[in-house]
Amino acid sequence: MSPAEPQRRGPGRRPGSVDTRGEILAAAREEFARKGYDAASVRGIARKAGVDPALVHHYFGTKEKVFVAAMALPFDPADRLPQVLVGDPAQLGERLVRMFLSIWAEPEFRTPMVGMVRSALTGEQGATLLREFVGSALLSRVAQAAGPVDPLRVQTAAAQMVGVVILRHVVRLEPLASADAEEIVALVAPTVQRYLVG
Amino acid sequence: MSPAEPQRRGPGRRPGSVDTRGEILAAAREEFARKGYDAASVRGIARKAGVDPALVHHYFGTKEKVFVAAMALPFDPADRLPQVLVGDPAQLGERLVRMFLSIWAEPEFRTPMVGMVRSALTGEQGATLLREFVGSALLSRVAQAAGPVDPLRVQTAAAQMVGVVILRHVVRLEPLASADAEEIVALVAPTVQRYLVG
Repeated sequence: MSPAEPQRRGPGRRPGSVDTRGEILAAAREEFARKGYDAASVRGIARKAGVDPALVHHYFGTKEKVFVAAMALPFDPADRLPQVLVGDPAQLGERLVRMFLSIWAEPEFRTPMVGMVRSALTGEQGATLLREFVGSALLSRVAQAAGPVDPLRVQTAAAQMVGVVILRHVVRLEPLASADAEEIVALVAPTVQRYLVG
Repeated sequence: MSPAEPQRRGPGRRPGSVDTRGEILAAAREEFARKGYDAASVRGIARKAGVDPALVHHYFGTKEKVFVAAMALPFDPADRLPQVLVGDPAQLGERLVRMFLSIWAEPEFRTPMVGMVRSALTGEQGATLLREFVGSALLSRVAQAAGPVDPLRVQTAAAQMVGVVILRHVVRLEPLASADAEEIVALVAPTVQRYLVG
């Protein structure tokens, strides 16, 4: 199979359709919204799209990558985590805060993320989706890298960073909204460091 | 004038109407949504409601109280601040975090606040309203009580608390969602203390 001419199989295939990728993404959005992140599966998404699961893997890779594409995130936040999680543990907080601020500074990331937060505020399904994705794709990885750390401490560190980007980019409270990123890093990194490493 | 039989004056009075209080609140919601918190005035709300400004003061008191009533907040957060802001500065962070968590634990406060946050995420006007109310009614008072403190530090402290209640009560991330409030106070109070007092 090549990306240019995917071969489709299975009882649900619809040979007349051209936008297979788009159909998979629509099916994925429906599956994630209905089941949440953890319970959704590539198999279920493939079934809903009427394609073979191998085709979903072929186009996107893992379930996490399907999610990132379906939510129109411009990249998988988890792809950027490894470069932050390796290195001197004494600067883990600083690297995390700097990466988090730089990602949120990109409008093409911020817009879909604000949409996810908004849908989390609007209903139970959105909250479940955000909770499970953040938990599975991000926080559990940070917890692994930081060593044996209480999940409550990881989440309190995340809360500090989430609160900063909400007040900075959504509520746009001054002077936080216009502050230099490095000024915020200097203030917040010791906090995150203390929660994660002690 | 007594609350039971308010006397109404002015060119815009509508003698046939009975729910004067409700009309003032509707006018206030419109005025706050259109002008934001800072630019809205009791005079403007009264004009829109077709009553004398004195009647608005009579029913509600200050502009802040009109806002609290219009937004259906069960109390004015600023009423609870003084009891937290007096006392040993060495425990200011602890008192603030404990009060903040206890307020958000009340569904009758949380529901309208989540509504405000949601409208802030949805559009510019909601963001302006939340930003100005939080800035005028809350953060400037905390900054005064903490002494000469950089507003950026006050907002970073607020960000920590805002992030915690969002992950705890809106996203409902476990174990944060079910954690004992005092366990969170123990984790977060030193952070807030460091930002505000150093």
